[in-house]
Amino acid sequence: MGMGLLDGVVVLDLTRVLAGPYCGALMADMGATVYKIEQPGRGDDSRSMGPFQNGESVYYINCNRGKLGCTLNLKAPEGKKLFLELVKKADILLESYRPGTMEKLGLGYETLKEANPGLIYGSISGYGHTGPYSKRAGYDIIGQAAGGLMSTTGWPGGSPTRTGTPMGDVLGGLSLAIGVLAALNNKHATGEGEKVDISLVDSVVSAMMNINMIYFAEGRIPQRIGNRYESTYPYDSFKTKDGDVIIGAGNDKLYRLLCQEMGREDLLEDPRFRTVSDRVANHEAMKEYVEAWTLEQTVDEVADRLNKIGVPSSPINTIDRVARDPQIAGARKMFVDVEHPVAGKVTVTNNQLKFTHREAAPQASAPLLGQHNEDVYCGLLKLDKAELDRLKAEGTI
Amino acid sequence: MGMGLLDGVVVLDLTRVLAGPYCGALMADMGATVYKIEQPGRGDDSRSMGPFQNGESVYYINCNRGKLGCTLNLKAPEGKKLFLELVKKADILLESYRPGTMEKLGLGYETLKEANPGLIYGSISGYGHTGPYSKRAGYDIIGQAAGGLMSTTGWPGGSPTRTGTPMGDVLGGLSLAIGVLAALNNKHATGEGEKVDISLVDSVVSAMMNINMIYFAEGRIPQRIGNRYESTYPYDSFKTKDGDVIIGAGNDKLYRLLCQEMGREDLLEDPRFRTVSDRVANHEAMKEYVEAWTLEQTVDEVADRLNKIGVPSSPINTIDRVARDPQIAGARKMFVDVEHPVAGKVTVTNNQLKFTHREAAPQASAPLLGQHNEDVYCGLLKLDKAELDRLKAEGTI
Repeated sequence: MGMGLLDGVVVLDLTRVLAGPYCGALMADMGATVYKIEQPGRGDDSRSMGPFQNGESVYYINCNRGKLGCTLNLKAPEGKKLFLELVKKADILLESYRPGTMEKLGLGYETLKEANPGLIYGSISGYGHTGPYSKRAGYDIIGQAAGGLMSTTGWPGGSPTRTGTPMGDVLGGLSLAIGVLAALNNKHATGEGEKVDISLVDSVVSAMMNINMIYFAEGRIPQRIGNRYESTYPYDSFKTKDGDVIIGAGNDKLYRLLCQEMGREDLLEDPRFRTVSDRVANHEAMKEYVEAWTLEQTVDEVADRLNKIGVPSSPINTIDRVARDPQIAGARKMFVDVEHPVAGKVTVTNNQLKFTHREAAPQASAPLLGQHNEDVYCGLLKLDKAELDRLKAEGTI
Repeated sequence: MGMGLLDGVVVLDLTRVLAGPYCGALMADMGATVYKIEQPGRGDDSRSMGPFQNGESVYYINCNRGKLGCTLNLKAPEGKKLFLELVKKADILLESYRPGTMEKLGLGYETLKEANPGLIYGSISGYGHTGPYSKRAGYDIIGQAAGGLMSTTGWPGGSPTRTGTPMGDVLGGLSLAIGVLAALNNKHATGEGEKVDISLVDSVVSAMMNINMIYFAEGRIPQRIGNRYESTYPYDSFKTKDGDVIIGAGNDKLYRLLCQEMGREDLLEDPRFRTVSDRVANHEAMKEYVEAWTLEQTVDEVADRLNKIGVPSSPINTIDRVARDPQIAGARKMFVDVEHPVAGKVTVTNNQLKFTHREAAPQASAPLLGQHNEDVYCGLLKLDKAELDRLKAEGTI
């Protein structure tokens, strides 16, 4: 342990708020050196987004842990020059400006490629860098709405519903990480650079999986169907004495085990429930049989019994339960503390990638605005201290 | 165009249903040679999951496009031997068995590493390979419930709600792709292999981002709050004459533009709405002002006006709208046809990764069960046709 899988990989992270920063944070956790480049005096929008701890945004800290912070005015001529010097030293650039902005700054992919032909340029935007909507601003909620996720989340008769986390941004950030890592693999093999063009909307559309297939194969428009699934049943939430419990008996084997545990082997012979597709078609009747059984027990009783016999079952965890869960917080160490110079001890969410030989975990807290300017401009770019002071006085950094 | 970023990368894909297969499909789209290895006679569970086209599961086809299909009985002694021969020829193995199953088969990471020290072993499971719940079965709905996503999705006073797509599986599959690609990068640099241990639950927990931070920084348990967000406002759905429209004015600049367009510059001076945090705190009052304006217009009128001035806005697309959207289906080509030997022309969801120099897109349809057995066993492993027939007759393949 100790070294990371991306040791030696240098990333310039111009991205803001959540999608791009999440990608950069995952890479920093794996050992990449990630320079978070922010607008002088102002910084990332998310610095003003709650929640806060001692006045510092922990929204920002979670998304930017382990990065080195520097400021740079990309509109200033000297700022552009410094940026090109940084690009020459980078493997990967991440940016989340509205498409066309980098070109307007004179820093589009074609220009940066001249400075560094092997550069992997990773962009993330609402709708992508091509097409009629490409210049439109797009944020998480646009991805969730335009990509079809909201129209299929929620309850029959209820409103379209977004997910409890900025899922458009998360899916976009993960897709961006896959894109730049695939390009990095190709760079190892061929020396070639690449431009990666990820959109939040495309990322959501890809995530719609079998839901899109329903429309294309059956011509049926998928609706909001609550907690049951289109492709399998009984795989749903069920009422108990003290709340809802999740049961996921998604294939024949698990269904048989469930019926046996319920003492309802007779259901195995019922023609309404013979195949997965039969059970989906007759899900209302199936739910009644399962709930007749779960309603006589508590959430924990059902979950314990079913997990014992290998049928997936779980309580619906609130975040406080997640935070103290012996598996999630305990064995998997999904929450770790970092020490921030102003906020103090901050608990952030750990990296979800677990490796046997190398580690992926937050390496440090997030930077204050421009905290590592001297390391970057004097250390990496070899400017002297007087130049640093001048650049600062002129508002270039 | 033409060549992919993962050309020459060989993947053995033992995974089933959605999470692992999605990862393998994204890699196949990028040019990796992905061998989908299935149980003889039965195959992946998702072959029996709808939707269907000419009796073939398009759920399966979407998740397994571009893969080569072979069958192999991993319980048969000769099946194990053949598998080890395949492992020697692979860069990456993907598996989604319940933790411990591969060890029980005598094919755990330690054994496979002896056959191929550079192997990247990517596992995906409900709770991960370590900890007290590691042996529990975990499917998508378990990830969504245990990881905190369901408890925070939905409406005040309403039920915990899953997302409209198997999001736990999707997040797990994307995380698995990041893990194996990061390990592949390290293999290029050092020659080392790696075991990657992804859990659906951890992947959901990581995706909870600022929602987790609310609990740790404020001690408050995040609730279901409908379509508004915890960290910014006005960024929500709003009623119009003919349905709900999304507006995402998440920062000061966008908020100013929105107020100007509404003819409500007076709100910019209102102390209740001065900062992002003020607007979150007074979201109910803010919503009334915005809705007084949106209710006099249609969804399209609001979206068109706001997009013209650079404020993010979108209809809430149903899947049929997504499927004919000029940006998504048109410019971004997010739906493509593949030709399946039985199902015929099948429309699948395209890869969300767009590159400038290389292509990521479905290369072919998904295989019939064992369709490429001869290519794999005679071509790759150099068995002769008589051996192939014997293995088939004995149920090994």
